[in-house]
Amino acid sequence: MIPVVSVVGSSKAGKTAFLEKAVSGLKNRGYRVAVIKHDSHRFDIDHPGKDSWRVTEAGADVIAISSSEKAALIRKTTEEMTLDQLMDIMMDDIDIIMTEGYRGADMPKVEVHRHGVSDKILCNEKELLALVTDKHIDMNVPQFDFDNAGDIVDIIVEKFLNQPKKEDIRLSINGNNIGLNDFVRDVLIETISGMVSTLHGTENARDIRLTIHLP
Amino acid sequence: MIPVVSVVGSSKAGKTAFLEKAVSGLKNRGYRVAVIKHDSHRFDIDHPGKDSWRVTEAGADVIAISSSEKAALIRKTTEEMTLDQLMDIMMDDIDIIMTEGYRGADMPKVEVHRHGVSDKILCNEKELLALVTDKHIDMNVPQFDFDNAGDIVDIIVEKFLNQPKKEDIRLSINGNNIGLNDFVRDVLIETISGMVSTLHGTENARDIRLTIHLP
Repeated sequence: MIPVVSVVGSSKAGKTAFLEKAVSGLKNRGYRVAVIKHDSHRFDIDHPGKDSWRVTEAGADVIAISSSEKAALIRKTTEEMTLDQLMDIMMDDIDIIMTEGYRGADMPKVEVHRHGVSDKILCNEKELLALVTDKHIDMNVPQFDFDNAGDIVDIIVEKFLNQPKKEDIRLSINGNNIGLNDFVRDVLIETISGMVSTLHGTENARDIRLTIHLP
Repeated sequence: MIPVVSVVGSSKAGKTAFLEKAVSGLKNRGYRVAVIKHDSHRFDIDHPGKDSWRVTEAGADVIAISSSEKAALIRKTTEEMTLDQLMDIMMDDIDIIMTEGYRGADMPKVEVHRHGVSDKILCNEKELLALVTDKHIDMNVPQFDFDNAGDIVDIIVEKFLNQPKKEDIRLSINGNNIGLNDFVRDVLIETISGMVSTLHGTENARDIRLTIHLP
């Protein structure tokens, strides 16, 4: 599946600045990058008077706007969407997802740490891919200062992107990702791509999406 | 599947004003509504200096921002996303999608027509659910003036929403919706929901999403 790396750290430690470096380093190597950002505040993205704002005010739960250059989707929620739900709406032409926040998710992480902003490290060695820090930390994890943080891209590429792509499957039920063992994975991929390949319009299938609604 | 009604008409005919009425009428009856808007101009949704703008500037192809109140997804595209692709990223808790534009799509339509803005009707009788017009048009289609356009909600509810929900399936390959006959539909629904039901964490499945990537 699309690899995910979470960038975590205290507020004001410099997460966004590191994300900018990482995204630009990955783009320079030709990868397509998505960023998922958790926002603990209200954020405004829609502006009074615009058509999109008018239909939102009228009560629309979801609004999508699409042009030749970009598409935007804004969705009202009663509780925060999970990382799984956000990943469900990513398309297959993305090579890697970088998240900001989502410390609780079971994903490899880069922690951004700035002495003075916080004195403790949030993650444990096992989940950390690398640390960005202004001061050496006594942990067995690759460490980079802020000036060289872009070099973490090498680790990300080596670990997640420098391998041949293979078939993959993602199953989600009511918005939650369901873990699959190798046997189930293979059976599902073989059965479904086999069934689908008998239909018209399914030649050169790269991205197969099936959505089933049960009443 | 989620029913879709397209609102079409010349520029300045009053499509957004009608959409506001339709959305608010549907919401008042308790339905969850999504709006998909085609935008032929550039639209701005991200603003200089914000974190989301910074990672977009750094080259991110997709950015998602999520809080407890809403989630937003902005995606750079090289060609306009299809209505099928936009529908793929809607979740199952939407009862109806209203689109603005998408005249070419094979969906039931409401045309908004204002004398003086345009003198011809864009759609044919067969595809029209209703007309909003300031002047009677010689067509065998229900017609409403701008003041009473909200009554079209009755037609939409009767035709698309006032029926028991049943199981449904949507298959898309590389972003294109694949039409399924009843037999294939039933076989796919039965096979997949049967296979999935043997896994842990799949109880009370209402929304099953399977995404397969082939190399």
